[in-house]
Amino acid sequence: MVTHIGLVGLGKMGNNMRSRLRKGGIEVTGYDPRPEVTDVPSLADLAAALPQEKRVVWVMVPAGEPTRGVLAELREILTEGDIVIEGGNSHYVEDQERAAEFAEKGVGYLDVGVSGGVWGLENGYGLMVGGSAADVEAVMPVFDALRPEGPREEGFVHAGGVGAGHYAKMVHNGIEYGLMQAYAEGYELLAAKSDLIDDVHGTVQAWSRGTVVRSWLLDLMVKALADDPKLAMLDDWVDDSGEGRWTVDEGIDLAVPLPVISAALFARFASRQEQSPAMKAVAALRQQFGGHAVKKAD
Amino acid sequence: MVTHIGLVGLGKMGNNMRSRLRKGGIEVTGYDPRPEVTDVPSLADLAAALPQEKRVVWVMVPAGEPTRGVLAELREILTEGDIVIEGGNSHYVEDQERAAEFAEKGVGYLDVGVSGGVWGLENGYGLMVGGSAADVEAVMPVFDALRPEGPREEGFVHAGGVGAGHYAKMVHNGIEYGLMQAYAEGYELLAAKSDLIDDVHGTVQAWSRGTVVRSWLLDLMVKALADDPKLAMLDDWVDDSGEGRWTVDEGIDLAVPLPVISAALFARFASRQEQSPAMKAVAALRQQFGGHAVKKAD
Amino acid sequence: MVTHIGLVGLGKMGNNMRSRLRKGGIEVTGYDPRPEVTDVPSLADLAAALPQEKRVVWVMVPAGEPTRGVLAELREILTEGDIVIEGGNSHYVEDQERAAEFAEKGVGYLDVGVSGGVWGLENGYGLMVGGSAADVEAVMPVFDALRPEGPREEGFVHAGGVGAGHYAKMVHNGIEYGLMQAYAEGYELLAAKSDLIDDVHGTVQAWSRGTVVRSWLLDLMVKALADDPKLAMLDDWVDDSGEGRWTVDEGIDLAVPLPVISAALFARFASRQEQSPAMKAVAALRQQFGGHAVKKAD
Amino acid sequence: MVTHIGLVGLGKMGNNMRSRLRKGGIEVTGYDPRPEVTDVPSLADLAAALPQEKRVVWVMVPAGEPTRGVLAELREILTEGDIVIEGGNSHYVEDQERAAEFAEKGVGYLDVGVSGGVWGLENGYGLMVGGSAADVEAVMPVFDALRPEGPREEGFVHAGGVGAGHYAKMVHNGIEYGLMQAYAEGYELLAAKSDLIDDVHGTVQAWSRGTVVRSWLLDLMVKALADDPKLAMLDDWVDDSGEGRWTVDEGIDLAVPLPVISAALFARFASRQEQSPAMKAVAALRQQFGGHAVKKAD
Repeated sequence: MVTHIGLVGLGKMGNNMRSRLRKGGIEVTGYDPRPEVTDVPSLADLAAALPQEKRVVWVMVPAGEPTRGVLAELREILTEGDIVIEGGNSHYVEDQERAAEFAEKGVGYLDVGVSGGVWGLENGYGLMVGGSAADVEAVMPVFDALRPEGPREEGFVHAGGVGAGHYAKMVHNGIEYGLMQAYAEGYELLAAKSDLIDDVHGTVQAWSRGTVVRSWLLDLMVKALADDPKLAMLDDWVDDSGEGRWTVDEGIDLAVPLPVISAALFARFASRQEQSPAMKAVAALRQQFGGHAVKKAD
Repeated sequence: MVTHIGLVGLGKMGNNMRSRLRKGGIEVTGYDPRPEVTDVPSLADLAAALPQEKRVVWVMVPAGEPTRGVLAELREILTEGDIVIEGGNSHYVEDQERAAEFAEKGVGYLDVGVSGGVWGLENGYGLMVGGSAADVEAVMPVFDALRPEGPREEGFVHAGGVGAGHYAKMVHNGIEYGLMQAYAEGYELLAAKSDLIDDVHGTVQAWSRGTVVRSWLLDLMVKALADDPKLAMLDDWVDDSGEGRWTVDEGIDLAVPLPVISAALFARFASRQEQSPAMKAVAALRQQFGGHAVKKAD
Repeated sequence: MVTHIGLVGLGKMGNNMRSRLRKGGIEVTGYDPRPEVTDVPSLADLAAALPQEKRVVWVMVPAGEPTRGVLAELREILTEGDIVIEGGNSHYVEDQERAAEFAEKGVGYLDVGVSGGVWGLENGYGLMVGGSAADVEAVMPVFDALRPEGPREEGFVHAGGVGAGHYAKMVHNGIEYGLMQAYAEGYELLAAKSDLIDDVHGTVQAWSRGTVVRSWLLDLMVKALADDPKLAMLDDWVDDSGEGRWTVDEGIDLAVPLPVISAALFARFASRQEQSPAMKAVAALRQQFGGHAVKKAD
Repeated sequence: MVTHIGLVGLGKMGNNMRSRLRKGGIEVTGYDPRPEVTDVPSLADLAAALPQEKRVVWVMVPAGEPTRGVLAELREILTEGDIVIEGGNSHYVEDQERAAEFAEKGVGYLDVGVSGGVWGLENGYGLMVGGSAADVEAVMPVFDALRPEGPREEGFVHAGGVGAGHYAKMVHNGIEYGLMQAYAEGYELLAAKSDLIDDVHGTVQAWSRGTVVRSWLLDLMVKALADDPKLAMLDDWVDDSGEGRWTVDEGIDLAVPLPVISAALFARFASRQEQSPAMKAVAALRQQFGGHAVKKAD
């Protein structure tokens, strides 16, 4: 059983995870290019510092090129019997390609979707894992230290073979898009009825217990409204992280209708447009056929 | 058969309709509160100027209070055997209520949905009519003068009893919302791919003949892009006329799913918001749970 | 302060509420037309059984005609200084009309949105209240007995004047539609990927702690999948209660875009159609223009 | 200028195109694996039959493997100065990859989106072309024979470099999805109001002239309803061709909101599901929290 791992990437997420792991009795050797946070000067040193019979390296760097770069280096360093864990937000198909490459060298590969944000340090992280049963079993003490307290199955799942962890995390994030948009539409309906609803924050807060819509996201909305009851300090610009896009792409591939998740994604796209070319086109059509009022661009 | 009618409301639509009717051999006495366009000084004078055996008055004023006001006055003036025609964009349920009131005095009521915008003077107006067969029959020469040339059934329908005309027009306009948004989304996809599509106007224009998407609305989009290939002179602010709202309300009443028409309506609502309260709420949630980047309001 | 109320309607909800109120120290006289559950034989007897200085009657019968009928009777029975509480799912505009009628007799009116379903007996009910501050204050012991334990503001709100309680409940239910559909789309994406995801129930269960999507609804989904992992025993037919429709109607009135909530509502409409007339129409168009494959009706 | 081409693929589309080209004065040598329709026994024979200074071969076979197979063979056969035209529905990115391979041999590549369905033989085909100006110029007589009569720019566009033709066709088809769904929703609203609308076919037919919604698709709907006024002979099962999916994928890549086109696509997905797993999940949630009525699976 593994009780000492290497952890690559000590940013906001990785740093908190190192703290929680250590508190949970797991030895962690961390590596990060920034000297002020790293435990060792290089990936090679990281590998050297681990118990040699089965080295386990957890990669926690941004998806895309950064993850690809670290994995390519590790492929040179790790050897038969070791395990690499991709804990970032890679696309599950890329996991399957990477895992095949590591398998050529006899190195195991686990993909882990990690949920919990900045709250995970305290609450524990929800974990969704893909890979072989033997690899999962070997790393279980690490997962147990990271996940929330309580029954294992309420904060951890071995969802299937390689890719299943990030597939599950992708779907989790897609759901999250839909949930957030549903709360947001409800908030707007309350705020728009200011002649009747005297207390928007209080109304949302009253949903915290006993109601059907109570949730952790609702609690966060209550906190946000407590600080800024009209959200006056925020712009309506909303980024998207990529996983919402993958979720809708997957729905298209599988012919699964996703009206709600796609609507939430499109709302984010629209939030970032200074001007909507599509709505200019609608305005143009209305002007052409009916002489309807339009607004000239400034 | 009626060949002389009163026409109340000589705005953009009414004025053009008067011209087309006269060109088509129908005698028209027009009334409008503006002395510079009216033919007679009052509604009473209008009624007096019509053939007395069966007076027909076509009301063509804005929906809502203006229409209600004119109809209330006409209820005092018209008498048994006369016919009133509501040609504006009233809600079909209101037609049914009004018609019942006129019926108490023996006055017939036709509701007519009129499509064609500023182009109707030249092309003719598409007409959707609700009311009794006898009343429709009596007014047919008027309808024949207004509708486009060609077979009657291609530009005219007696769709059903009172309300059917405006119901059909409401659905027509709901469809129009969906069509316009579909073209607009396609336009944006072309415009967004400027590294590949050299000629957006030319591409849209090439759809004018032979393709599946050819239509009158497409022709209007070609015209708009000819004048202003990037729609740079227009703002993305789009009004809605009320009939789109009624269409979605009706879908809700009848449990008819309207994903496309409702999406088109909501896109117009969103186009008129300086800031979206809902997207502020999503930004707030993201900030709370993950410390994600948000934009502060200016 | 009121510690004895009348409760009209002892169905699933009313009966549980009576139990919780009595456990919380509130005296309850219940009335229901069914002799086997009622405490008194008539509404008049109910009113007679209450402390006469300020009679409070909570109405908990189905929205629409049943509620209207009970309120009409109570308007005959109650007198100045009494309070009626509408705890069903009335539309907030109807509350405002009813309250004005009761006000003519000096009877106070509170509208209360009650959330919690069959779980409220044990967990307490989330309460959203509209009405005057004095009436709310008077009934507070009753609200305190019904609401979940913990801070009052986490399960109770006096949201505004008459109508605000049911407006808040309507928005709450609209949000609920969106949340449920978001989870449902995610479930379908997991289930559709059966070649990768070995354990759908386990994956959803693993979201119970630590994740961003954890919620009471998620817990219910875990329970449902525990009993029936492929939901094989259920049909895909989903009713709608009316409040989802009102929510979208309200969005249309206020020009608030509701892409997610409306999509969730339309998905329910579609779930109840044996055949979709709209999709027949699309099939017909495809057949006309391209000779595309269609399926003949059986 | 090219006046004799090879045409690979003599199915429904290819066969009609051969007829129209020949009628337009273009010499066509056709190849198809089916002996009963082909002009020559093999692709090599096809190449041999063409004017040797600049052989032009138009490929008109199903997208995906069939197209890839034919192009791979042609890459062996064609030589410097020749031109291959991909007239099927390939993805534009694949065109760009193929063109690069042909360019290595000095063979030009044009991608052409062809719209018109079974009507193209008579009406002409709308053509959207990507590739070099020189290649387009050389093949112009062929395009002129295929496209509808009238001004060239109303049925033909050279939209940009390689890929632009199929990108434009993809967007065209995405728009088509939205248009069809908009008409279909309107149809359903008419059909659902059978207590008011006596004549659904007549109402749709009355939109043929003068109205804002008139279009070729509308004309097709009128034809369909003339044959089968309640569409009773059709199932509500609707296939999708792949280009709708690509359009939404592209919107996701470019961050272009596509609420209407995606809704139309998802409606097709849903139309093909016997049972919706998502709606089973919603039913399960409702059953869990409120004991709401559900339907048991048969």
